[in-house]
Amino acid sequence: MQAQNYIDTNDYTKEELMKIAELSLLLKKCIKSNYYPQLLRHKTLGMIFQQSSTRTRVSFETAMAQLGGHAQYLAPGQIQLGGHETIEDTSRVLSRLVDIIMARVERHKSVFDLAENSTVPVINGMSDYNHPTQEMGDICTMMEHLPEGKTLTDCKVVFVGDATQVCASLGFICTKMGMSFVHYGPKGFQLRENHQKILAENCKVSGGSFLITDDEDKALEGADFVYTDVWYGLYEAELSEEERMKIFYPKYQVDMEMMKKAAPHAKFMHCLPATRGEEVTDEVMDSDCSLVFDEAENRLTSIRGILVYLLRDKLGEPEEAQFDTLKAELYGFINKL
Amino acid sequence: MQAQNYIDTNDYTKEELMKIAELSLLLKKCIKSNYYPQLLRHKTLGMIFQQSSTRTRVSFETAMAQLGGHAQYLAPGQIQLGGHETIEDTSRVLSRLVDIIMARVERHKSVFDLAENSTVPVINGMSDYNHPTQEMGDICTMMEHLPEGKTLTDCKVVFVGDATQVCASLGFICTKMGMSFVHYGPKGFQLRENHQKILAENCKVSGGSFLITDDEDKALEGADFVYTDVWYGLYEAELSEEERMKIFYPKYQVDMEMMKKAAPHAKFMHCLPATRGEEVTDEVMDSDCSLVFDEAENRLTSIRGILVYLLRDKLGEPEEAQFDTLKAELYGFINKL
Amino acid sequence: MQAQNYIDTNDYTKEELMKIAELSLLLKKCIKSNYYPQLLRHKTLGMIFQQSSTRTRVSFETAMAQLGGHAQYLAPGQIQLGGHETIEDTSRVLSRLVDIIMARVERHKSVFDLAENSTVPVINGMSDYNHPTQEMGDICTMMEHLPEGKTLTDCKVVFVGDATQVCASLGFICTKMGMSFVHYGPKGFQLRENHQKILAENCKVSGGSFLITDDEDKALEGADFVYTDVWYGLYEAELSEEERMKIFYPKYQVDMEMMKKAAPHAKFMHCLPATRGEEVTDEVMDSDCSLVFDEAENRLTSIRGILVYLLRDKLGEPEEAQFDTLKAELYGFINKL
Repeated sequence: MQAQNYIDTNDYTKEELMKIAELSLLLKKCIKSNYYPQLLRHKTLGMIFQQSSTRTRVSFETAMAQLGGHAQYLAPGQIQLGGHETIEDTSRVLSRLVDIIMARVERHKSVFDLAENSTVPVINGMSDYNHPTQEMGDICTMMEHLPEGKTLTDCKVVFVGDATQVCASLGFICTKMGMSFVHYGPKGFQLRENHQKILAENCKVSGGSFLITDDEDKALEGADFVYTDVWYGLYEAELSEEERMKIFYPKYQVDMEMMKKAAPHAKFMHCLPATRGEEVTDEVMDSDCSLVFDEAENRLTSIRGILVYLLRDKLGEPEEAQFDTLKAELYGFINKL
Repeated sequence: MQAQNYIDTNDYTKEELMKIAELSLLLKKCIKSNYYPQLLRHKTLGMIFQQSSTRTRVSFETAMAQLGGHAQYLAPGQIQLGGHETIEDTSRVLSRLVDIIMARVERHKSVFDLAENSTVPVINGMSDYNHPTQEMGDICTMMEHLPEGKTLTDCKVVFVGDATQVCASLGFICTKMGMSFVHYGPKGFQLRENHQKILAENCKVSGGSFLITDDEDKALEGADFVYTDVWYGLYEAELSEEERMKIFYPKYQVDMEMMKKAAPHAKFMHCLPATRGEEVTDEVMDSDCSLVFDEAENRLTSIRGILVYLLRDKLGEPEEAQFDTLKAELYGFINKL
Repeated sequence: MQAQNYIDTNDYTKEELMKIAELSLLLKKCIKSNYYPQLLRHKTLGMIFQQSSTRTRVSFETAMAQLGGHAQYLAPGQIQLGGHETIEDTSRVLSRLVDIIMARVERHKSVFDLAENSTVPVINGMSDYNHPTQEMGDICTMMEHLPEGKTLTDCKVVFVGDATQVCASLGFICTKMGMSFVHYGPKGFQLRENHQKILAENCKVSGGSFLITDDEDKALEGADFVYTDVWYGLYEAELSEEERMKIFYPKYQVDMEMMKKAAPHAKFMHCLPATRGEEVTDEVMDSDCSLVFDEAENRLTSIRGILVYLLRDKLGEPEEAQFDTLKAELYGFINKL
């Protein structure tokens, strides 16, 4: 039997995603109060990384430790996906040895294939297509920093720059939640047909809206959150510094001038790492309106919530008292060794 | 003083090995019942890998976490054996910093040298000579899947293909246990004189038997378990795909035809990873007679048993009550910092 | 707000360093008695390594596990310092995701920059300038092996050979403690002006003394501890075997002849790894006067003490009872999922 996975937020309803966000924020409150609920005691997470990562890896490993479990870091090259062993076999084997799997993959198909063959939940820790743990963290950050008097659905979120997987993901979650989403980027580097189709479907259900444009004034007008990401591009299509500056600079750099075109209370967001001086200025990154480090912290926040949500039917710490017979048998055996 | 190690099952009696197998299966029962005995609480395992590994590494790390301890992964290149520091010195140092050591080594001599100089137990996580944690897992798997009315000593086990370290290890444990063992492989790729001498000695004590042959009918007749492994060969003598196909294919590929020559209830085993389409067909791997994923799970099963067995005199969780004086001294000191 | 860091023992008073040493030895006594105080329960350490390491990495990871916490190993290349992300940003991000950071860096400036921007404590796990966790371990080892009737301040410590960061560090802690320190090494490979200035300042406060010389008899006379380190040199200035033998051999090799020039009760120390046959003979390494493996064990000893000291205001295991309201809210939420 296949477990519930977290591969794409579009597999979830708005209500389910809100529950995960609320659970994430509740767990954050517990731990900030120095109460560490040991919900994942004895649980093991296998973390497969096809690429190196700071935020995702550290967040998953800290989350498991704080909740009483353990995360195993399977570094790039330490485990092959589709090398000596097929992905299908690796997935079936890991399902027998760990309680839950996360994978950061080069190709979205890999995390999908892992999930297809796994009997334990699989979490997408970023692919070339999307970044759903980032999405959940970002929703948490926006919920913590709502403009006065506004709810999520009243908010306008503008992503500035290249149509990275973070851009797509932000669009997915905002439209899912019924928010207004804008991708402000140059033609040729805007969200494509396949993305737009999903955004449109999400809006139809949620009442949200989306716009893809290269018109700065229109994009920024009334924006509550201004978000950007690096300009390297994706994987093999990675751009050189010269190329990317030619395409995006200076029009798509988030500077104080651009922030002024948004709402007066607008906040700045970035999934990090940032290339200061390219997609964003130091002044914006280090300003009072910058949420970037809260956002980084909420990677951990959302990952705790997602882990607990996916394992919600297997939580809790069994009482040893229930196991008197087994314990007697085990210790009896050991004492005779 | 040297601790008890787990380098080679031939260092153990049949009775000792049976106790480890029974302990392994008992711990599996506990954990399947959601009772996680914290027998290795506060204990640290140092895992040295000279080669990358999925099953062995994940199994050891999960085993330690489930039993309350912690495993450190010292990846290829992260710790040198015999580089800037002699193996002897590394072993003496690690003995001071961890409670137990496992090593997957390129040369059997390395794990032997580690053990010679260690004051804590050393476990062989596979060398070019043998793979004793695999052996113990395989015995557990066979015990769980005995043909009706048979005991272990009634069973015939056939290893098909190249004389890998898994082939040798399977021969060691089967003859130790008093079973009937066959290596069915082409001349030049059969178990050698040094292996045969050990098999003969084991059989003399246990009443088991062994046969090395390239006669398929004779090999498979009445077999209860049919086992195979990859055809790459070992380390520097690794074969190209073309070479190995020429030597082993199609005669030594385990397919449904071959399985039909074994007993009707015969089960298929493989230590994995498998190269589907070479040493085994998809049909056999995915058939009802295939135990390969149970076998993978029993790597974890056996490793829990071996860890607890080797540390059996140091188990258990001390009662804090015993430490009132120390605790008062420590907290008194800290409170004045 | 910046946390207290452990970058350089010269940032601490003698009294503070003595407290850390005493705390380290007290924690060692607890654990040797099988009492593992869970002082770092729920705490996470981020370990950044720009170079591979055996002793430092294993010690930190074991220390965290034994005291109830968890250490994350961020291997060379797995986290960039100053690559895609500035050190400043990485430090701010990690501060949100872990409770304490250690870094082994190529350039001292890197650990300093990390600490400047971190809101959690940062520990220097060795740089090209110094090795302060080694210093603390060495003080513990000397305290455990004081010559009869002597206190620390009565002792003379001689470092033989190249002015490595361990040589400088030993000088720092010895002069800080009011001991007599000698660097016996060839001209051009002796502690420099900048080191000597610090040693002089330390001696002025502590009443200790120091001498830098290439006169063997004067150096060794009455020495209580004779210490050496490898001759490779530091990083890019690394020496070939031929070069280093020409400079240091045989005059600066610690052999039994040299040990006889020290006090009759003199002990031999080495931070390890050792190149046996270069800076030290097998005979000395393996003699009764050799403390090298106790020293290695005291890396763990000192690291436990330093971790607990830096987190002393955040220790202890909160009583779940305090969290009745939060617990009710959390489990109420989860039960409705």
